[in-house]
Amino acid sequence: MSETFAPLRLKKNEERRLRAGHLWVFSNEIDTAQTPLSGFEAGQPVEIQGHSGKVIGTGYANPNSLITARLVSRDRKHPLSDSLLVHRIKVALSLRETLFDKPCYRLIFGESDGLPGVVVDRFGDVLVVQITTAGMERMKDALLAALEKVLKPTAVLWRNDSSIRKLEGLDSYVEPALGEVPETVALEENGVQFEAPIIGGQKTGWFYDHRMNRARLAPYVQGKRVLDVFSYVGGWGVQAAAFGASEVACVDSSESALDMAHHNAELNGVADKFVGVEGDAFEALKSLRLDHEKFDVVILDPPAFIKRKKDFKQGVEGYRRLNQLGMQVLQKDGILVSASCSHHLPHQKLQDLMLQSSVHLDRTLQVLEQGHQGPDHPVHPAIPESAYIKAIFSRVLWR
Amino acid sequence: MSETFAPLRLKKNEERRLRAGHLWVFSNEIDTAQTPLSGFEAGQPVEIQGHSGKVIGTGYANPNSLITARLVSRDRKHPLSDSLLVHRIKVALSLRETLFDKPCYRLIFGESDGLPGVVVDRFGDVLVVQITTAGMERMKDALLAALEKVLKPTAVLWRNDSSIRKLEGLDSYVEPALGEVPETVALEENGVQFEAPIIGGQKTGWFYDHRMNRARLAPYVQGKRVLDVFSYVGGWGVQAAAFGASEVACVDSSESALDMAHHNAELNGVADKFVGVEGDAFEALKSLRLDHEKFDVVILDPPAFIKRKKDFKQGVEGYRRLNQLGMQVLQKDGILVSASCSHHLPHQKLQDLMLQSSVHLDRTLQVLEQGHQGPDHPVHPAIPESAYIKAIFSRVLWR
Repeated sequence: MSETFAPLRLKKNEERRLRAGHLWVFSNEIDTAQTPLSGFEAGQPVEIQGHSGKVIGTGYANPNSLITARLVSRDRKHPLSDSLLVHRIKVALSLRETLFDKPCYRLIFGESDGLPGVVVDRFGDVLVVQITTAGMERMKDALLAALEKVLKPTAVLWRNDSSIRKLEGLDSYVEPALGEVPETVALEENGVQFEAPIIGGQKTGWFYDHRMNRARLAPYVQGKRVLDVFSYVGGWGVQAAAFGASEVACVDSSESALDMAHHNAELNGVADKFVGVEGDAFEALKSLRLDHEKFDVVILDPPAFIKRKKDFKQGVEGYRRLNQLGMQVLQKDGILVSASCSHHLPHQKLQDLMLQSSVHLDRTLQVLEQGHQGPDHPVHPAIPESAYIKAIFSRVLWR
Repeated sequence: MSETFAPLRLKKNEERRLRAGHLWVFSNEIDTAQTPLSGFEAGQPVEIQGHSGKVIGTGYANPNSLITARLVSRDRKHPLSDSLLVHRIKVALSLRETLFDKPCYRLIFGESDGLPGVVVDRFGDVLVVQITTAGMERMKDALLAALEKVLKPTAVLWRNDSSIRKLEGLDSYVEPALGEVPETVALEENGVQFEAPIIGGQKTGWFYDHRMNRARLAPYVQGKRVLDVFSYVGGWGVQAAAFGASEVACVDSSESALDMAHHNAELNGVADKFVGVEGDAFEALKSLRLDHEKFDVVILDPPAFIKRKKDFKQGVEGYRRLNQLGMQVLQKDGILVSASCSHHLPHQKLQDLMLQSSVHLDRTLQVLEQGHQGPDHPVHPAIPESAYIKAIFSRVLWR
């Protein structure tokens, strides 16, 4: 990439958020008299300056996005560059190597790892990369070279089909970046073996974000009957079976996801405890309730019901209905694990709607554990949007 | 106890909070025309009724306390009684037996376990009991009998010296309830052995509430130099050493606590890695900073700096100073574990002040894990005060 940075100057007092740790510049914060937006190309490297010209750091701009610039480096000696990418990847890797025995984790989590616009999931020698900003799309080759240099992967996939790319004016594509990219990859999580579909599956193919929460299942599921709703390829359910559950039913609307969940159960020698239930989660829960089926542990890990703020009310109602249905198929004094990946649903709101459902059903709720995304998805403390995963472990007592 | 319940009637619309799951009645919510406060003795069993006389449930009153009544049972067939105590203890025990291999845990956590005013910590066959309300003080004998029936302990200690007893007009005492109560007890936490002072130590002698957070230390401390500030008897520090830290320094102002921490290090064969530093935490951190001492992992687990709402501002300043000092003795890209047991300090506020300190020191903060109290300290979802523990695991990057 070029080492020239176009100056991008902020309005008076608009540098405060950046000085306090944030990384984003919104379009209305730019002094367009001094540095007009029309002067920037999508993804162009910039030097972000305060109103008086004092340098804040380097990053990249996108005049077509509401987030018009992102700060990448505050260090004048180490501005945004190919070698900075290498450095940031090494710093991220060192954390993951401290935390995990096996090379299976989210290696890069955007802003939180100092690389806005980049997500990398590692499955041993295979990397799945998601680029979500024009700035990083422009540095694609340098990013790939940096990953090659630090990790020497055998295959890299661009999984560039996230819908948020539209906000940056980027097109959607999934294509190999390096080597022979397989349809599926092997991974280990909490000592349990999985195969995950990186090309045809959801997001990058696997959700490492709930790893710590799934690990916490172990004591709760020994010898128990477990229901895993929105199971996808069995992340929760197969781990529950491997941890000692007597029976696990996985509910998902995708036949191919359930086939892979079944395969994953086989990989761990627990296929005899595994049942797949294909169908809409709400409908499946209703028929289980009608059939008076009861489970000792119910896990609810739905897709985000609140993708944007405007979906809040309707989304909350979805979570409320789901949690109520989950409680209705719970055995006496059973365990409900209720997850959410909506940033817009605060922990407190999820807990409140679980409480409401329990009161409505004449049950008493105990909140046992409050889980979050694992440490390979660090939260950037100045960027609330970087925190999104919640998992509330609760016991639902019959009064 | 008596099976007669004095009626306690609420003002119009004041039953809503109880119907929504809460258990407390404040003095201004009582219809004193129908049921004057002067009609209740401290600790007297009551039937709590809505304005129209509809029964909400049974509990106990204390006309001298701001929390004038606490609801214990909503079930008319099973009102507050000696046998209800037995039942509630069994329900609490069944959760702990699911979760823990060894009989070392908080067995009863007040409201969250359906027993307002009671805390019981279990150390094998020894129980330490804290009573904090007049209602439970009045049922003391029944409580002891219930604990004997369910657990057959060899010794039980009344550790009734919590300052909150004053709010209920109760005196302060520590005395044996049953058997020969030893000065110290043995316990196991996360596979590590400890001895804790139940008579002369802090609170009940041991803080089980951070168990899960201490367990999370393991991957972070391998071969590392660790500083444990406010170490008490070594809960964090000795576990860090047992998990593979190369060196652990424990700072505490109590010589006897440090002696026991050293003894606990010996119990686990890690005394050679252990150093005790007696003194004020802030002063000790300042001299470590002056001496350019650096640690890979710094753990800050101070006593509550915000005991009451009015201490908020000053308390926050204390946490801020402490976290800043902690960061100043951290090695490059080191791990800061910052805990708080102040209910009045929200997680977000702790994270914010850590961010501020990091910015002030020209560091970049990554929030890796957000820990809470363990599942033997369940949160009552209608009673925010029941949630109090926070532990933020962070990485402090040098820019």
